[in-house]
Amino acid sequence: MNNYITLSDIENLEELIKEAIQLKKENSAAGLGKGKTLGMLFFNPSLRTRLSTEKAAKLLGMEVMVMNADKDGWALEFEDGAVMDSNKAEHIKEAAAVLSQYCDIIAVRAFPELKEREKDEAELVINNFTKYASVPVVNLESATGHPLQALTDAITISELKKSKRPKVVLTWAPHPKALPQSVPNSFAEIMQKSNVDFVITNPEAYDLNPNITKEVSIVHNQQEALKDADFVYVKNWSSYQQYGQSPKVEENWTLTGEKLKATNNAKVMHCLPVRRNVVIADEVLDSYNSVVIHQANNRTFAAQAVLKSLLKK
Amino acid sequence: MNNYITLSDIENLEELIKEAIQLKKENSAAGLGKGKTLGMLFFNPSLRTRLSTEKAAKLLGMEVMVMNADKDGWALEFEDGAVMDSNKAEHIKEAAAVLSQYCDIIAVRAFPELKEREKDEAELVINNFTKYASVPVVNLESATGHPLQALTDAITISELKKSKRPKVVLTWAPHPKALPQSVPNSFAEIMQKSNVDFVITNPEAYDLNPNITKEVSIVHNQQEALKDADFVYVKNWSSYQQYGQSPKVEENWTLTGEKLKATNNAKVMHCLPVRRNVVIADEVLDSYNSVVIHQANNRTFAAQAVLKSLLKK
Amino acid sequence: MNNYITLSDIENLEELIKEAIQLKKENSAAGLGKGKTLGMLFFNPSLRTRLSTEKAAKLLGMEVMVMNADKDGWALEFEDGAVMDSNKAEHIKEAAAVLSQYCDIIAVRAFPELKEREKDEAELVINNFTKYASVPVVNLESATGHPLQALTDAITISELKKSKRPKVVLTWAPHPKALPQSVPNSFAEIMQKSNVDFVITNPEAYDLNPNITKEVSIVHNQQEALKDADFVYVKNWSSYQQYGQSPKVEENWTLTGEKLKATNNAKVMHCLPVRRNVVIADEVLDSYNSVVIHQANNRTFAAQAVLKSLLKK
Repeated sequence: MNNYITLSDIENLEELIKEAIQLKKENSAAGLGKGKTLGMLFFNPSLRTRLSTEKAAKLLGMEVMVMNADKDGWALEFEDGAVMDSNKAEHIKEAAAVLSQYCDIIAVRAFPELKEREKDEAELVINNFTKYASVPVVNLESATGHPLQALTDAITISELKKSKRPKVVLTWAPHPKALPQSVPNSFAEIMQKSNVDFVITNPEAYDLNPNITKEVSIVHNQQEALKDADFVYVKNWSSYQQYGQSPKVEENWTLTGEKLKATNNAKVMHCLPVRRNVVIADEVLDSYNSVVIHQANNRTFAAQAVLKSLLKK
Repeated sequence: MNNYITLSDIENLEELIKEAIQLKKENSAAGLGKGKTLGMLFFNPSLRTRLSTEKAAKLLGMEVMVMNADKDGWALEFEDGAVMDSNKAEHIKEAAAVLSQYCDIIAVRAFPELKEREKDEAELVINNFTKYASVPVVNLESATGHPLQALTDAITISELKKSKRPKVVLTWAPHPKALPQSVPNSFAEIMQKSNVDFVITNPEAYDLNPNITKEVSIVHNQQEALKDADFVYVKNWSSYQQYGQSPKVEENWTLTGEKLKATNNAKVMHCLPVRRNVVIADEVLDSYNSVVIHQANNRTFAAQAVLKSLLKK
Repeated sequence: MNNYITLSDIENLEELIKEAIQLKKENSAAGLGKGKTLGMLFFNPSLRTRLSTEKAAKLLGMEVMVMNADKDGWALEFEDGAVMDSNKAEHIKEAAAVLSQYCDIIAVRAFPELKEREKDEAELVINNFTKYASVPVVNLESATGHPLQALTDAITISELKKSKRPKVVLTWAPHPKALPQSVPNSFAEIMQKSNVDFVITNPEAYDLNPNITKEVSIVHNQQEALKDADFVYVKNWSSYQQYGQSPKVEENWTLTGEKLKATNNAKVMHCLPVRRNVVIADEVLDSYNSVVIHQANNRTFAAQAVLKSLLKK
């Protein structure tokens, strides 16, 4: 692996998942990371990603340096040829090149603005880091993708599935704030690379980017989609067509215990943080069906597998 | 030890103090913490607690991950059954369970609001972490207690006492801001478990929670209380009766060199940070009587003793 | 070395540079720092200084604790004898003494206010840390100096020079914000200790402190100064005479490719962050002449050489 920016950076998904599960068993991994440094740069808040990636790196023997990009350092300019006479003190060209001197791997989190679709899809932050860094870059959630989360999710399904080809349903859920499409995008991508029967269900105005969902079956009736599901992945996202907006939805899309009855006693997944009783009802999250904590734990091993793969190169 | 939330989590105080003093001598402690991770979560500022606890953990060989809870991560919901449609993105149930996946011990600082006594006494933050975490939790100062500070104080008195049963006076002092009762509460508790002659002195409106002070002698005349003291612990706190308020005090309660003359050449203690010439006069803090820096140093060894005890379980 | 506050703390510059270059080759340095802790305290933002110093310490085997001084901890009082009844919760006397308990070396960054020259020149923050700390203190850029940057710069020139006594020109450049004189001050100082032909060029209102520039030739015509230069160090600073102000400059002082033609194919240096097309034009920064990234990399080895020298004492 040279970088880990999108899922297409994974050369062999199955191998990588096996690797992660092996790492989890070993709970250590030789001294591959010894003397190496991971630099983590956050343009947005993080709990799981921050701590699980830091932990993963340290399990590999790496040193970790964490920065809140704008608060601890300097506001960055990303435009090529900019006359930097406003509030941006440092250009990404220097920032990425300099970080590459101090770090053996750079990990970056940068959310979308959800205002202009084209701008978000340009992935200015993560793509410029990749372009100007001379060391591998890891995506800790970018404007349109969250491939570390997706790898975690694939690991979790791989561990918990009871049939060879389980039915996996990604369902939209309500949320008080407009959220990025990064998590559902990457989940939809990785499911298409997995041996599962994959269905997405969401209100009509919330179809994801068709370039990502491709041939995946999209059902606008939640109850119909949930039928016989082995895994239900719940997640809110803002509209792709009415970009970044939250068009009103009449039906109640919160995942409840009642709705779960239609499934094959499905495992319920969510990337967290989750709004209880808005996205998923307490009775589901507090039930045996919920695997959200197990899933969060796998973040460490997904990150460890990715970092190990990058260190080997 | 299973958690370290209140002083009652200490099974054998004397043993623990001995352990701390031993650790201080050794300045290392085998590899007990190797491969283990301490996660520190701050809802409020910290200098001594942050650095001494981090240092203690590293002396034990642990990895340490530090987060400013709300600034780096997500605002937490603590109410059971809440419909999370406001600004709180994550429920303590998930946060504590997830942190328990990444950390072997979780340490939390959360100050009181000093508005509603019942709410503060419910200790929502620390108690919910303890309830929902599956790993030990350490109190880095909560709404009503600061047991790591109290352990430090007991260690310090144990080291510096010149008689078997020294007289220890906890005296209130003025402060421009209403402060929590956490430090005096825990100090009063630990002194009651120690072989000392313990007296509290404060203005009438400032009596601490009687459930904590119990049989301790409370004297409203500072000069009288200070007489023959071997240790004077100076600290401001807000009123417990007029909860969180700062009722006007006529006399000057600042600890001065003049007042110290009535004592038995007492050692002067304070948990720091201290407002010079408001809480304690320069001439005292800069004199040989002051042991505040020595005391601050003991924070490391108190933390180390507690962490070691938790790791052993 | 006892502290590293100003360049005069360097006993033998040549030796120290050699040491740094040696460290760079080795990329490790025995276990000199093992069991030792570096505490880093930031009153202002930092990227290179933060990460390179942290990295340097870890390469030496040290533990590192990083704090954003005011945000993570308490606002500090620096005035002697202050009655601390306002917003400052902790006096430098305690803060420095306490940090000295937890850290084996303390590193501090504190920029000037650029309002009163006398106040900035008093170097309240760094000097008080040095006064009240009982362990070595490292200057991570103070009100009037940046000796770690200057050491980096001397290392870089030493590595890249092609003649025994190269011509080094420090040139002022425009900037949208009034900046400190710390970097040019320390650079001017270290060049005077180096075997170089050193010239400073700046607009008339921007002469640096004459106590620092001493006998150095100051030329107010940029093009004339640049002639035959082997190294051009570009940097903005605010006025020293009209202290902290930015008096209007008629000519264009941005370093362009056109201007560079007068030099001896000079290496272009800057401490970073740099405002592209304001301080230095893209065509220069993106050319082979620019060594700013190489220079930034040397920050690690300058810091490592200094820390190693402090640890040895």
